[in-house]
Amino acid sequence: MCKNYNLKDKIQKEGKVIGSDIIKVDSFLNHCIDVSLFDGMGQELSEIFKEDKVDKILTVEASGIAVACAAARYMGYPDVVFAKKALPSTMTGEFYGSEAKSFTKGTTSVFRVAKEFINTGENVLIIDDFLANGAAANALADIVEQAGAVVSGIGIAIEKGFQGGRKSLEARGYKVRALATIEKIEDGKIIFK
Amino acid sequence: MCKNYNLKDKIQKEGKVIGSDIIKVDSFLNHCIDVSLFDGMGQELSEIFKEDKVDKILTVEASGIAVACAAARYMGYPDVVFAKKALPSTMTGEFYGSEAKSFTKGTTSVFRVAKEFINTGENVLIIDDFLANGAAANALADIVEQAGAVVSGIGIAIEKGFQGGRKSLEARGYKVRALATIEKIEDGKIIFK
Repeated sequence: MCKNYNLKDKIQKEGKVIGSDIIKVDSFLNHCIDVSLFDGMGQELSEIFKEDKVDKILTVEASGIAVACAAARYMGYPDVVFAKKALPSTMTGEFYGSEAKSFTKGTTSVFRVAKEFINTGENVLIIDDFLANGAAANALADIVEQAGAVVSGIGIAIEKGFQGGRKSLEARGYKVRALATIEKIEDGKIIFK
Repeated sequence: MCKNYNLKDKIQKEGKVIGSDIIKVDSFLNHCIDVSLFDGMGQELSEIFKEDKVDKILTVEASGIAVACAAARYMGYPDVVFAKKALPSTMTGEFYGSEAKSFTKGTTSVFRVAKEFINTGENVLIIDDFLANGAAANALADIVEQAGAVVSGIGIAIEKGFQGGRKSLEARGYKVRALATIEKIEDGKIIFK
């Protein structure tokens, strides 16, 4: 593992609790990126999924991209595909789409992946920075299934274990692993599982 | 340099010309990411700016993140800060902001960076995936200047040299370097400088 890699420690020291259910980790993950820490996360994700077939990694913009790329480096460089939340003028072909409501932003967006970038039968590992109610990961899984591809597993940096995300994904039969699972927030304190 | 790193070759083989001035590189940069190629880009950017002081890297979501993180790895792991195009509910503090009109999307957005993540006097390297009319890079430079920090330089993966981006940035006194500069598009063909 990379030198000084300790995600939970970093969350504990720098995570800011907002209200009863939002944890702000802008200083190293969602706005400012600690690339060395991300290398550690990538290495740990590659360890976790080393027995699983992974032809491709699927994530969603924006923070997920950095986690997915870090993992790809330790997994023999599978391509990373990131779903888009807005429709750029260059996305002219057919795409798979699935709606997801952002827990922190409160907005609903359509995740889109061009059909040419996921092939039938491919093994696709889903990676994202956060797992809360599972909307994003479920939308990514929908896209993999629409393509007739296989979900290898779901790898998450930070899971809020007190929300329903994991349950909804495990109910669909997926292997879900998180690098740090927060069991609860109590009196503004973060308590890990 | 990383094995088989050849960005221009990749653009030539996989880039799709749309109209007279848009080049779609979705298969390895803007939608699907070739992480090994990005490592090569990161290494080349670190070479280019090795004489410049870099305390921090500033980019903008989404594709810029992967380029910036790849460069950070070869530059001793400075923090990567990415400007946000939408205002998440977790961005509660004060921020620097600057408007940029996307050339490919045709939309105008406000780039925002929380004030706490750029300090006065810091040397900030701006990195982005594309340079067209320079709107994004100029907006990022505005943010660095609002913070009283110093622009170390501007590193770009793909520059469309036939648009005004470089000129507008050099007029502000910045060092601008691109890994691949497209001189023109002629009969649907990409011609490098």
